[in-house]
Amino acid sequence: MATVVLSGGVGAARFLTGLVEVMDPRDITVISNTGDDSEFYGLYVCPDIDTVIYTLAGMVNPKTGWGLVGDSFRALTELEALGCEAWFQLGDRDLATHIWRTMLLRQGRTLSQVTQQLAQTRGLRLTILPMSDHPVQTVLETEAGRLPFQEYMVKHRFQVAVSNICFEGSDKALPAPGVLEAIADAEQIIIAPSNPYVSIGTILSVPGIRKALENAPGKVAAISPIVGGNAVKGPAARLLCELGRPVSPLGVAQLYHSFVDLMIVDEADSALLPHIKALGMEAASAQTMMTSPQAKVTLAKQVLELMK
Amino acid sequence: MATVVLSGGVGAARFLTGLVEVMDPRDITVISNTGDDSEFYGLYVCPDIDTVIYTLAGMVNPKTGWGLVGDSFRALTELEALGCEAWFQLGDRDLATHIWRTMLLRQGRTLSQVTQQLAQTRGLRLTILPMSDHPVQTVLETEAGRLPFQEYMVKHRFQVAVSNICFEGSDKALPAPGVLEAIADAEQIIIAPSNPYVSIGTILSVPGIRKALENAPGKVAAISPIVGGNAVKGPAARLLCELGRPVSPLGVAQLYHSFVDLMIVDEADSALLPHIKALGMEAASAQTMMTSPQAKVTLAKQVLELMK
Repeated sequence: MATVVLSGGVGAARFLTGLVEVMDPRDITVISNTGDDSEFYGLYVCPDIDTVIYTLAGMVNPKTGWGLVGDSFRALTELEALGCEAWFQLGDRDLATHIWRTMLLRQGRTLSQVTQQLAQTRGLRLTILPMSDHPVQTVLETEAGRLPFQEYMVKHRFQVAVSNICFEGSDKALPAPGVLEAIADAEQIIIAPSNPYVSIGTILSVPGIRKALENAPGKVAAISPIVGGNAVKGPAARLLCELGRPVSPLGVAQLYHSFVDLMIVDEADSALLPHIKALGMEAASAQTMMTSPQAKVTLAKQVLELMK
Repeated sequence: MATVVLSGGVGAARFLTGLVEVMDPRDITVISNTGDDSEFYGLYVCPDIDTVIYTLAGMVNPKTGWGLVGDSFRALTELEALGCEAWFQLGDRDLATHIWRTMLLRQGRTLSQVTQQLAQTRGLRLTILPMSDHPVQTVLETEAGRLPFQEYMVKHRFQVAVSNICFEGSDKALPAPGVLEAIADAEQIIIAPSNPYVSIGTILSVPGIRKALENAPGKVAAISPIVGGNAVKGPAARLLCELGRPVSPLGVAQLYHSFVDLMIVDEADSALLPHIKALGMEAASAQTMMTSPQAKVTLAKQVLELMK
């Protein structure tokens, strides 16, 4: 059953590990946020794409949810000795991915081509598409000034108030080849439990993608990344608050209401179901906390069941 | 006393560690071969410059004479897993140098600028100049076809017969800023015990450098890299044979006779001194085998003494 998943990083990757267990991976197309992509030391780094690939390949560091398990940081330490900033943790084995990607991009391949080659080399059978082959940079306007996403997220650990979010370059970006087609052809579309602003919102900023979702013939479901008033991971709760939305699945549903048919919230938030339905969409609850491999599979099964 | 050293890799680096002990490093200008420079995975690698810097900084792997002591190879192993060739041993900490250099070159710095910054960052006080800021590639015509230097040297371990050596790009290359001035201003010039073809010969291929040496007011001495009919390291002996020269310091002296005033050979080759003098240059012997730190200092002292 042709399935599209809109994806950020860790939360989406964990959901996908369950999903590939309960359906044929070859039927899954992931559309990944690339607004966090950054150059470090001239190397092109795609945090969300890499997190999805490493996680599905069973190589991810389970403690952090990103990076490679058991990696070392000798090159980074040496770069620091050479006078470079080294706040973004790039492991030695991880660096191979970025060196390889940068080499292929400089040879003229597109990010789509490199991403698919990387996924295949890592043994994955699903399709991973970047949202765009053009550069889009998520920039946060904060009390500490304008910060590219990784500086906000990693260097400042999102402990600065945000007043606005920009997606620089998105006005000139086109959806990557296959993105609009995948959405139009999908029998079901799942918005992963990712940040509604800086993961999913970034994907939606690429001209044509929001409209494609609104017009999609397939059913669109979203899994809330907010549980019990808090983000499972990262700055989603803080951003909802700072940008004037309810810090709950309701806030997420408000952001998604033009294109989501079914909002899936955690059982802890069941009391919000009537409020979400009042926005004109279906709503249901599930066990969304992916605390074990089994919980990921159970969530994937529940989501597919609820979408029927 | 203003001193210029023409330098290849390991042999020159070892000689320089002695030289900086017996004279003020700030009076030394190294002119380094860059014909071995190669791109691996899009990273710009300067084997000879790095060998000199790592050796003088006390960081070199003493077993190989190149690379960093105690380095690991996790990124390289991962690049191999991604389908890359991995015959050129780039360690994890070593990679930081190449990532950093590539970043600065792409930002528009010249190789001279990057090299000097690297030397300073590693705490060195001498000046290291690449022979040219323009790309020159040493290519060997062999029985296995045309091979760039590192393929010949590392991949084939120089076990293929060479019929000719080309320095591609040298006709369009200019000496790096300061190279001709350093030669003209030097009170003494030392040709390190490096390969006369693919280290020193490459430097001489850059238009203007050979002539500057021939016209240099300072005394020019060369240390033979051939001892007792064999190269101390690498393919020098084999190349002398294949290209029709005596496999001895005499063959080296024949290659250098237009610009060298004094040929320094190992004591094992003292019998050759009259033959070398017959070429119209001075000749003397010294203990050239740098088998210990003390031997390096002793050789440097002897060379300076002989040049008086």
